[in-house]
Amino acid sequence: MKPVIAITAGDFNGIGPELALKAAAHSAVKKICTPVLVGPFGLLDHVRSSLRIPARIQRAAAILPKGNTIAVIDVGDGIAADVQYGGPTKSSGKSAGVALENAVSLCLSGKADAMVTAPASKEALHLAGYNFPGQTEMIALFTRSQQVAMMLVSNTMRVGLVTIHVPLKEVAGRITKEKLLEKIGIIDASLRHDFAVKRPSLAVLSLNPHAGEHGDIGKEELEVIEPAIEEARKNGMLIQGPFSSDAFFGTGAYKKYDAIVAMYHDQGLIPLKMSSFGKAVNFSAGLSIVRTSPDHGTAYDIAGKGVARLDSMLEAIKLAITISKRRK
Amino acid sequence: MKPVIAITAGDFNGIGPELALKAAAHSAVKKICTPVLVGPFGLLDHVRSSLRIPARIQRAAAILPKGNTIAVIDVGDGIAADVQYGGPTKSSGKSAGVALENAVSLCLSGKADAMVTAPASKEALHLAGYNFPGQTEMIALFTRSQQVAMMLVSNTMRVGLVTIHVPLKEVAGRITKEKLLEKIGIIDASLRHDFAVKRPSLAVLSLNPHAGEHGDIGKEELEVIEPAIEEARKNGMLIQGPFSSDAFFGTGAYKKYDAIVAMYHDQGLIPLKMSSFGKAVNFSAGLSIVRTSPDHGTAYDIAGKGVARLDSMLEAIKLAITISKRRK
Repeated sequence: MKPVIAITAGDFNGIGPELALKAAAHSAVKKICTPVLVGPFGLLDHVRSSLRIPARIQRAAAILPKGNTIAVIDVGDGIAADVQYGGPTKSSGKSAGVALENAVSLCLSGKADAMVTAPASKEALHLAGYNFPGQTEMIALFTRSQQVAMMLVSNTMRVGLVTIHVPLKEVAGRITKEKLLEKIGIIDASLRHDFAVKRPSLAVLSLNPHAGEHGDIGKEELEVIEPAIEEARKNGMLIQGPFSSDAFFGTGAYKKYDAIVAMYHDQGLIPLKMSSFGKAVNFSAGLSIVRTSPDHGTAYDIAGKGVARLDSMLEAIKLAITISKRRK
Repeated sequence: MKPVIAITAGDFNGIGPELALKAAAHSAVKKICTPVLVGPFGLLDHVRSSLRIPARIQRAAAILPKGNTIAVIDVGDGIAADVQYGGPTKSSGKSAGVALENAVSLCLSGKADAMVTAPASKEALHLAGYNFPGQTEMIALFTRSQQVAMMLVSNTMRVGLVTIHVPLKEVAGRITKEKLLEKIGIIDASLRHDFAVKRPSLAVLSLNPHAGEHGDIGKEELEVIEPAIEEARKNGMLIQGPFSSDAFFGTGAYKKYDAIVAMYHDQGLIPLKMSSFGKAVNFSAGLSIVRTSPDHGTAYDIAGKGVARLDSMLEAIKLAITISKRRK
């Protein structure tokens, strides 16, 4: 039995439906899993025909069609007329949110082995009343997971984030020793269970420039990060830091670790994307279900043109399959 | 007449004296300039002999020796017995500070055409009573420059920083429209005068993740950065942004611009060092004098071992010469 992978259509004003359809119809994907699309059927059918994507799709509920036809769990909202390529709308946000909820349900009920989410827009989700910083946080709530850590995985590094979609000015205030230890714990456990690393080695980045220079440029290293690392080490983890982030990536030191713990979004994502843009995968560590997504956004600027690159989406599907198999 | 380049010894507990001596004695350097070392003579002589650096040095004041002997402007403080390789001390900070002051004087008086500073430790400088965030800020004061911008220059990009050695939690509060316009102006002028770019094209990064998503993840893009860009554009500049920094570097978009304006230290230095570690140069744009330095720190961990890499120091000397010639 091939694993069943639920793929959401994401924000339909962006490249989400195009990515989901192309990925589900991709020979490499069909070979390793049974993809199920979760999104507005009418709209997916419109995108399929207008972009001439060679995919056969069919509305489905519990029963999956056989052969080359791809099942679509129709979330209803969103028809061709709603599409406004290029920017967030209330209906594109609602469609993305409902698809996400449905995909989570498929995973929780065991009908799907993992879910892969096409890009959604936080702004559109907010317009539709989903007041979350991002899809990761929504899934955490829907699965009643107390703990989640956003991890970015590429062929050169794995990065786990302590804070995610937070204004920069709020980052320092949100990093406590407890939160840091929680994220470190999630990342460490995920490396062992999801990535089959027997004895994970972690690197923790500093918050401030030059790792704070012993308190001269910020106190968080001395007061929060170092004590957290010390405690994690006492608990038996292999963990180093806090490292000055520019030198850490510049010298290539990151290559020595199974994962890097970054304090904020851009600190982790700049080096990750710089070393492997378009092929990294976003993985939500710590959840009871398996969820991955591409490393890019809705790409509103190229939506509807049929030119979206599939690389990261395909990597996301592969990683979701690998992790769901490891967990079994 | 070859240009005279003042090279400070930096923090003597680090790799500074080793770098300064090796660079001054380097054949490629002697070919293009007359290097003058500024540091504690006794200590430089000790490092020279203990690390067997093939350099002939001599105390000098106004008159520079001819031939292969390298002049040393003796700043007195710091003898062999003071060296404590591996960490900051009050005397290593004092020595670095006094050398910096002397090098600035040489430039202001026209005895030197430019200065290149070996790495100093902010912590050591503080111990010695120099209460500045870094050498750049010290030089700004000594030269009575009202405006300065730290620029990092490599063969792949030029990055100008809006804030430098500031705790991350203070970054957002320090970025005002006025400050941003000031830094943009300094960087734009420096590109034209120091880098011979006729019509500079600038990219401005965002402060928040995803460029703030239209205010959903921080308001600074809407309230500060975009208005500043708008005004700079009205003033005739070629300027774009604010860009989401991870995608900006990940997609290679940075290659299209003459300089990138980064909001904070690690945002600019992670991608810069990742793309060219050990070969980038720190340049203090906006000063009346020409000052460059290597892109790395004191490297206390390898001090006194004779293994410091010279690449960035050599690039710093070359850039200082190029810019001082362009300004004439």
